[in-house]
Amino acid sequence: MPVNYPSEFQGFAITDPKDWANPKLTSFQPKNFEAHDVDIEVECCGICASELFSLKNEWSDAPLKCLSSAYGPKSQVVGHEVVGKVVAVGSDVTLCKVGDRVGLGAQCFSCMECPRCKSGNEQYCPKAVGTYCAKYADGYVSQGGYASHVRAHEHFCFPIPAGLPSELVAPLQCGGLTVYSPIKRNIQGVKDPKVAVIGIGGLGHMAIMISKALGAEVTAISRGYSKKEDATKMGAHHFIATSEEGWENGLADTFDLILNCASSTTALDLDKLLPCLKVNKNFVSVGLPHIGEVFNVRPFTFFSNGCCIGSSKLGNREEIIELMKLAVEHNFRPWVETIKVSEAGVSEGLTRLDKGDVRYRFTLTGFHEFFGTGK
Amino acid sequence: MPVNYPSEFQGFAITDPKDWANPKLTSFQPKNFEAHDVDIEVECCGICASELFSLKNEWSDAPLKCLSSAYGPKSQVVGHEVVGKVVAVGSDVTLCKVGDRVGLGAQCFSCMECPRCKSGNEQYCPKAVGTYCAKYADGYVSQGGYASHVRAHEHFCFPIPAGLPSELVAPLQCGGLTVYSPIKRNIQGVKDPKVAVIGIGGLGHMAIMISKALGAEVTAISRGYSKKEDATKMGAHHFIATSEEGWENGLADTFDLILNCASSTTALDLDKLLPCLKVNKNFVSVGLPHIGEVFNVRPFTFFSNGCCIGSSKLGNREEIIELMKLAVEHNFRPWVETIKVSEAGVSEGLTRLDKGDVRYRFTLTGFHEFFGTGK
Repeated sequence: MPVNYPSEFQGFAITDPKDWANPKLTSFQPKNFEAHDVDIEVECCGICASELFSLKNEWSDAPLKCLSSAYGPKSQVVGHEVVGKVVAVGSDVTLCKVGDRVGLGAQCFSCMECPRCKSGNEQYCPKAVGTYCAKYADGYVSQGGYASHVRAHEHFCFPIPAGLPSELVAPLQCGGLTVYSPIKRNIQGVKDPKVAVIGIGGLGHMAIMISKALGAEVTAISRGYSKKEDATKMGAHHFIATSEEGWENGLADTFDLILNCASSTTALDLDKLLPCLKVNKNFVSVGLPHIGEVFNVRPFTFFSNGCCIGSSKLGNREEIIELMKLAVEHNFRPWVETIKVSEAGVSEGLTRLDKGDVRYRFTLTGFHEFFGTGK
Repeated sequence: MPVNYPSEFQGFAITDPKDWANPKLTSFQPKNFEAHDVDIEVECCGICASELFSLKNEWSDAPLKCLSSAYGPKSQVVGHEVVGKVVAVGSDVTLCKVGDRVGLGAQCFSCMECPRCKSGNEQYCPKAVGTYCAKYADGYVSQGGYASHVRAHEHFCFPIPAGLPSELVAPLQCGGLTVYSPIKRNIQGVKDPKVAVIGIGGLGHMAIMISKALGAEVTAISRGYSKKEDATKMGAHHFIATSEEGWENGLADTFDLILNCASSTTALDLDKLLPCLKVNKNFVSVGLPHIGEVFNVRPFTFFSNGCCIGSSKLGNREEIIELMKLAVEHNFRPWVETIKVSEAGVSEGLTRLDKGDVRYRFTLTGFHEFFGTGK
């Protein structure tokens, strides 16, 4: 079926979390077009682990939000590592123009007026709206990028430097930014920084490349040795397998940042990991667990070095633009396997990601051919 | 019995944690006198909650360390908020001289050679020795300041400015420094900082005064309203009782630091407290719980602001000297109730502190009269 744009978009949607692995092609009404909105005709879209949590509805105790959307579809399209072409801009848009190639990550709106928006922390704006599964002030529930088009506030449509292939720059929009922001914020101004990256997967493999590009000495930490060769190719200077007894010996007082990119923290031995930090440094989790999971760590564990633990969410516009520039200057690219978009392709990507069968990131491609767009 | 100094010190000691509330007067051998050691003739000594944990042996799963001391007593004297006069200095001592009034806090030794010692973080030196209950490299287990004398490395004997009464400056040596260091480190360079202090007790009441002196707008957080008037007198600009339903309303994105001075974290609702922090700021615990207690908090809780939680231990020499100068310049003093030292006095102080019957800090005084020193 041809896309009836701009009154309708097409995308791959579910209506029940039980069907998370089999989104179906559907047409749906986009949100109302506002003065700062931009329509992106999607060229490709990365597959992020967030999609699994969202489609399975594991980050919420309530029913899927789309079921109570004030207007638009009662079904849910995900996808928030979008690359595409601007095809329409609202009356007040100044940050991009029709024809630009832009990226869109996991956030599509913030208020632009609160202290957080005004201080480069729009990702923590209380009125922030995620690119999918999130309710706008007008009651519409956002629809993501496994679609012909996606609509977003201009602030979250990022200019992509020439020379970066779309399918490789897609994973930077969410996963890349998610690791770039805490790495930069934690090692900025540190002389000869040392960064440990736990979990060599979709997030971790970008964290290694980014840390190295930012000048850090990088230690990759994995359970076993299966990813050692890859980690070295990504740029890790050291590799540690925590299955090895005594792995922590000699690592006390070493790191300026430990970035946890594993999706769960419960499997981690924080009593061994935290003492590897230098004094007053941070252990930051970006891999998102089930909503009920807890950090299980004793206040006493922190006394060896006065360290802290926490989590970090996405990053700001300036940071994603910096990150893409860094990728050009240091010539690193996410390791991407592409899958042609279709119901079968989306299903394959989600199912294989759920099994961990990806090294290290999927990008869905071929949107123009599938949706008959790109003309 | 007269003190047989310098071959013996006298102090109030226990041999069994069951007797924690009734230390007995005893004579004991001090550690061997090294080139950087200083002997302090004690004038007065604060009572810190650490003493309760140590005497009850609640910070350890092993028997009292003194029972395996390589030499010296098989009994334990506590006390680590000491003020007294230098009566002997080792051959290499340059930081103080006989006759000086000095303070000694919870640490009596560090290696002076490791990266932490060389970067103003000697409190996190892997070879640090606590003022009591801690084993020196030579196997001696340190003995504290409920005593006629105490022996410590010169680096931890701090010059006390004239004009600060000894019984009021004693609580600064451990408790004061413990809150000063994280307050300073977390609000340094922040414009118009806002600090929340949880727990208006021995640590918290000093944290309020110190935060205010450092230029912060201070919010005192307590369970009920019983300490509201006191908190205001200490300098708190705002007061919150968490027994009040909806206490957290309007506090999102407010604080640059939440300092937890309560001795337990399990009673705290971190899901409500952490969102009160500004972006990327810290919740720091200094009140020490039972060794088995855990932080129970979800990674998701941190996503509203990218905050972190952790603990902080003591502070460095420079910080305690700064703190005492600040107390002079801003004319604040800990709120102290004095108790004359004796077996009965020590027992009264420990027992009342255990019940929380103190506003807000005890200092044991009258050491000269009791031990026949000070001549």
